[in-house]
Amino acid sequence: MDAQTCLRTLRAVRQFRDEPVPDDVLNDILEAARWSGSAKNTQPWQFVVVRNRDTLTQLSRLGQYAGHLARAALAIVILTHGDAFDAGRVAQNMMLAAHAQGVGSCIAWIFPQQSALQLLHAPSGYQVSAAISFGYPAPVVRKTIEGQPLERVLSSMGRKSLSDLVHYESF
Amino acid sequence: MDAQTCLRTLRAVRQFRDEPVPDDVLNDILEAARWSGSAKNTQPWQFVVVRNRDTLTQLSRLGQYAGHLARAALAIVILTHGDAFDAGRVAQNMMLAAHAQGVGSCIAWIFPQQSALQLLHAPSGYQVSAAISFGYPAPVVRKTIEGQPLERVLSSMGRKSLSDLVHYESF
Repeated sequence: MDAQTCLRTLRAVRQFRDEPVPDDVLNDILEAARWSGSAKNTQPWQFVVVRNRDTLTQLSRLGQYAGHLARAALAIVILTHGDAFDAGRVAQNMMLAAHAQGVGSCIAWIFPQQSALQLLHAPSGYQVSAAISFGYPAPVVRKTIEGQPLERVLSSMGRKSLSDLVHYESF
Repeated sequence: MDAQTCLRTLRAVRQFRDEPVPDDVLNDILEAARWSGSAKNTQPWQFVVVRNRDTLTQLSRLGQYAGHLARAALAIVILTHGDAFDAGRVAQNMMLAAHAQGVGSCIAWIFPQQSALQLLHAPSGYQVSAAISFGYPAPVVRKTIEGQPLERVLSSMGRKSLSDLVHYESF
């Protein structure tokens, strides 16, 4: 997939087929993560790849809208020391790398953090910046999140126009 | 450029040729920004495109390592209400879209924030998440940042190996 198409067509995918993500695709996702930039090249992240169904199910209960983790082929949990901007950059790289291979993804916000950190045996000092579900998109998509209509959960549908977002020289 | 190459080869570029970035390339960068995902699709960002040399110079003085802004063809300042993770996602999308067109970029951290917000006439309630320089890479690259050797400014050179970053099932 060309880069421009990949950047413009990535969308959150919450419903997945029951089909594993091959190791070479996982490797592509992790290589994209590894090459992400970070402030002063601190590379302030560690990644935990979870395929165990029981662990995925337990993670899916840690967060109001984290249910998609239970149905994912795998999840990657991003651990940092609190570097949210860099965590966003690396998350984006992973999701784009997956999308380029036809694999969907969705970010889950995890809380309580401490339960996830214990579950993953993370050393002290780490935070869970995000857990990302990965899997091949389901052929039929329900227009709900955790049983609620999309419009009730999301702040908006679609994207704002450039004229609502962009200013020239000053605001 | 294919997506995988784009994701693996993006690097910070701090030195630029004296050559404008065409409007269609800027539009690609802004479209990639517009289509970025965000928590609950809040799209919590506004973008200020700066080409005015005086404004770029003033911005370049707001931050210890922001000097590259003075030499950029343009900068895009990301204003948010403090959503650092989402700001990181949208910054990454912009930098990848630029890279796919041969345009280099570098993130600057801006402070004091208030000076930049006043300079850009930003409404109250916004923060400067980052200012990103864009321009065509200089043919000869100095291995310094603000006159200091790269190794003295950056935490590390190159990237960690996957074996230093990735854990399976638990940490």
